[in-house]
Amino acid sequence: MKTTAPSLVRPGIAALAGYVPGEQPRDRRYVKLNTNENPYPPSPKVLAAVRAAATDDLRLYPDPVATGLRRQAGEVYGFDPEWILAGNGSDDLLSIIVRACAGSDDPVLYPVPTYSLYDTLVAIQGARAVHVPFPADFRLPAAELIAGAARVTFVCNPNSPSGTLTPVTVLEDMARRLSGLVVVDEAYVDFARETALPLVRRYPNVVVLRTFSKSFSLAGMRIGLAFADPAVIAELGKVKDSYNVTRLSLVAAEAALADYSWMEANVARIRATRARLIARLRELDFVVPDSEANFVLARRPGRDMGPVQRGLKQRGVLVRYFPTPELRDALRITVGTDEEIATLLEGLAPLLE
Amino acid sequence: MKTTAPSLVRPGIAALAGYVPGEQPRDRRYVKLNTNENPYPPSPKVLAAVRAAATDDLRLYPDPVATGLRRQAGEVYGFDPEWILAGNGSDDLLSIIVRACAGSDDPVLYPVPTYSLYDTLVAIQGARAVHVPFPADFRLPAAELIAGAARVTFVCNPNSPSGTLTPVTVLEDMARRLSGLVVVDEAYVDFARETALPLVRRYPNVVVLRTFSKSFSLAGMRIGLAFADPAVIAELGKVKDSYNVTRLSLVAAEAALADYSWMEANVARIRATRARLIARLRELDFVVPDSEANFVLARRPGRDMGPVQRGLKQRGVLVRYFPTPELRDALRITVGTDEEIATLLEGLAPLLE
Repeated sequence: MKTTAPSLVRPGIAALAGYVPGEQPRDRRYVKLNTNENPYPPSPKVLAAVRAAATDDLRLYPDPVATGLRRQAGEVYGFDPEWILAGNGSDDLLSIIVRACAGSDDPVLYPVPTYSLYDTLVAIQGARAVHVPFPADFRLPAAELIAGAARVTFVCNPNSPSGTLTPVTVLEDMARRLSGLVVVDEAYVDFARETALPLVRRYPNVVVLRTFSKSFSLAGMRIGLAFADPAVIAELGKVKDSYNVTRLSLVAAEAALADYSWMEANVARIRATRARLIARLRELDFVVPDSEANFVLARRPGRDMGPVQRGLKQRGVLVRYFPTPELRDALRITVGTDEEIATLLEGLAPLLE
Repeated sequence: MKTTAPSLVRPGIAALAGYVPGEQPRDRRYVKLNTNENPYPPSPKVLAAVRAAATDDLRLYPDPVATGLRRQAGEVYGFDPEWILAGNGSDDLLSIIVRACAGSDDPVLYPVPTYSLYDTLVAIQGARAVHVPFPADFRLPAAELIAGAARVTFVCNPNSPSGTLTPVTVLEDMARRLSGLVVVDEAYVDFARETALPLVRRYPNVVVLRTFSKSFSLAGMRIGLAFADPAVIAELGKVKDSYNVTRLSLVAAEAALADYSWMEANVARIRATRARLIARLRELDFVVPDSEANFVLARRPGRDMGPVQRGLKQRGVLVRYFPTPELRDALRITVGTDEEIATLLEGLAPLLE
């Protein structure tokens, strides 16, 4: 007897829409401000290291435990290597955490709107996503998150799509009061004022995630790092694929950390452009929270921004539009180069009534 | 109140030992015959393509749906792209299948001994591994697998660690009689006589997995492919990480397929060495099943091969030893170059009483 595809998978998967990433057009003429990539290239030393490593050794498996990268990251961030786990992007690490910690129907708590992949990962796992709405000013609803007492609590910080930063003191209070895991997803933290990394050493229930996709300009190489107590890292390590990071990605990440000032210079440029972009958007009557990330959330309360997003696309500029009740009156705009932002603003003005 | 790491993860994870991959020594002087890597390098065209792609574009995310690779693989293997899913190695695809199809306590069935990662993935998922022992000659226990009527049945074919091949007619019979998913893990099939790929078109419950790690000499780049009915591929695609394959891995895989004859030439050399290795091991009184893979299982019934494996390591040769009751009297030896195999045999002889 033959079966159909939905019956071959679990009901929870068949019912799932799946995560929809931002558009990745093959047409390179777009000004691409929709998926928070860095407009500046990775360090030339990274590219040279990758090319030099493209040898016959690609026939061999990568180091399954990323020894060199973890040692180097440990030196840069002040941790012994056993406090660090490398992932195939921080998405891989998020998936590992959900699979390791959230059982069937276990609540996984986070403020929304936030990185929507959390919803997808929780649904795949058959756990239960519990959303706590951010208030309009995106201040973290810490009391509700603490009251939720979940096995896993995610805080994307700076948050996407708002760009807003929760102070580390607030996160520390959460870590102290919660007995479950507090995962601080710091994908964008190099663009912000402060990091929760110091909490990792003080609270064995804190995991901090980093990625090389944004500040280090290496989205194409898929590298993320988790920092946590060695006992937690050991548990998460059981769930990761044996060889989850490619040889060349390991090389790229090590070289990127070795040229840290290259990243910092790009971050400084992006921050300067971000300030100008926010000022200009506010002049255009957008409500824009102060952003600590490499993107801004530009809102015109109550007005659907779908037509504006489509109009910009016709003019060759991609920005992110989320067709949800909470976000349809907003655009998330990646901070590109000054020239790209000029093109964006030029296209934007005539689309606003 | 502070908690300890085990209480932060699910009980099933805390109890898990985790998959132990074969040793990946940093000392390059070893003759490395323990993890079934190809002794011959990838095509120079692959290396050139990877170097050429190590550009500023690494700042951009990879194509989330691997459009170019799927198109190219479709042409090579005779499928439309929607029949194909790309993974971060076939390990990633195995993980996706288990997560998509096996619910809590659902049985996942496979003959053993086989690729031990299946055990790990099923345990992580909280599903239930059901083992059907291979007979001594490694003929597939098809009747038992069919009677098991599991949601997911894995067949590693050629099987690891035995190297033996189940004929496609037997797999077809299983596919016809089972309503659950039949996953044929063809990691080593390029070294074998026949492939189950034609079944994919006829049976919507068949998934065939391929990897670039073995025959294409690209273990370091982490690329796998799943072939299945488009409806199944669509479901599996919901579970994969959005950007699961790096930009350079996509480039490497496309270039490898474009230089298919390079792979075939290496496979021919390995098959010739394999025949000589098996003949010589049998002369040394090992029981060796006919292998259709790039490794052989060499058994001395009833004798623990642990000391032999350690003795070989002292002599600079790594082979795989599995410390289980079923396999402790065997070594799994990757087919290296003729020179490497000569070194192995030279080291082996004095270790046998």
